Amino acid sequence: MQEFHHGALDEIVHELVTMSDAVQVAVRDATRALLEADASIAERVISDDARIDTMHDQLEQRCFSLLARSTPVAGELRTIVAAMQVIADIGRTGDLAAHVAEIARMRYPEHAVPAPLVPNFTRMSQVAQEMVGKAGRTLLERDPDAAAMLASEDDEMDELRSEQFRLIASDDWTFGVEAAVDTALLGRYYERIADHAVAMGGRIIYVITGEAPEGEDWPTT
Amino acid sequence: MQEFHHGALDEIVHELVTMSDAVQVAVRDATRALLEADASIAERVISDDARIDTMHDQLEQRCFSLLARSTPVAGELRTIVAAMQVIADIGRTGDLAAHVAEIARMRYPEHAVPAPLVPNFTRMSQVAQEMVGKAGRTLLERDPDAAAMLASEDDEMDELRSEQFRLIASDDWTFGVEAAVDTALLGRYYERIADHAVAMGGRIIYVITGEAPEGEDWPTT
Repeated sequence: MQEFHHGALDEIVHELVTMSDAVQVAVRDATRALLEADASIAERVISDDARIDTMHDQLEQRCFSLLARSTPVAGELRTIVAAMQVIADIGRTGDLAAHVAEIARMRYPEHAVPAPLVPNFTRMSQVAQEMVGKAGRTLLERDPDAAAMLASEDDEMDELRSEQFRLIASDDWTFGVEAAVDTALLGRYYERIADHAVAMGGRIIYVITGEAPEGEDWPTT
Repeated sequence: MQEFHHGALDEIVHELVTMSDAVQVAVRDATRALLEADASIAERVISDDARIDTMHDQLEQRCFSLLARSTPVAGELRTIVAAMQVIADIGRTGDLAAHVAEIARMRYPEHAVPAPLVPNFTRMSQVAQEMVGKAGRTLLERDPDAAAMLASEDDEMDELRSEQFRLIASDDWTFGVEAAVDTALLGRYYERIADHAVAMGGRIIYVITGEAPEGEDWPTT
């Protein structure tokens, strides 16, 4: 057993921020592919997701090696375990961005999202990107207050999703069954991206304070 | 630092199997609530999910304590880390069963699933329950071959979901937009349950062999 290397842990945290930046870009580009019906951007997001998955696997392995090769004390152990969970959250967020791009690609050259829902999805994507970005920065800055704010930002995401359901269920919905299904699944993907950002916030609070946040705002994943 | 307690790790694995049994029941009951439009069963599944979340939190804490209080060697460390990931998979599966029950409750006294899709969802639920049950038993029996089979069982789930999309997109779909949206989201929930079972299989293979399974059959979550 070697003494614990703080440098190795700091490096992992920096790589995690790089990974969350890549995922934030994936969410932005997937949304552009979706709203502009751009198949080439969609293809790029989907192929880039393989790179994010590779980062996921490598970072997970590095955390494991760090656990195996040294004797971290409680605070360091918390950080490594939380890092492994955050790696899973960010990896999953990348998968969800790729799912958005897959719907864009499937409907090309048509637009998957009907025109009246474009502002809603534009805002959903902005909220998702902001939340992923904030979760990444919070990790670096170890700011529990910023991490806690992620749960309240998630409320806007829930409201945007409710608005989608109201429109789909209304008499104004003239876009058919297929567009309704696409909208419901896309809304679900963005909602899950926000959930993962909230979960990341919760894990960061745990690292800093040693206590998990309480309450139903904090999803198990 | 104490010497590593195998007994504590065995206990955690047994609790994980208990948790996966509870989740398997949740998937069964949520499906019953859905297909029989039974609001009281739906309510029970939703309230029982809080108990599954509590099991999740307690087991995660026990794994963490085990990491913090002893010096596990590589094989034991792999098992603890994999156990933490499996805890997340099972907890998430419980959430997905609750989401199925929430749709049943929302549409009550109506049936959320149109009659022609009942056999499809019945089978989806069977496959999901079998996969969750197999993942739980594989954990106990440490059988990498059984764990590897989970990836191929997932293929039937994908085919069932494709069948749903074909029906929704066909001229035979006379059940309107709302039922199409419910079907798409429900299909997504069952598909994700299967994904988590496959992921659990992958983690079990990693524990036993020390190597992660390769290939796109193995989801990151």
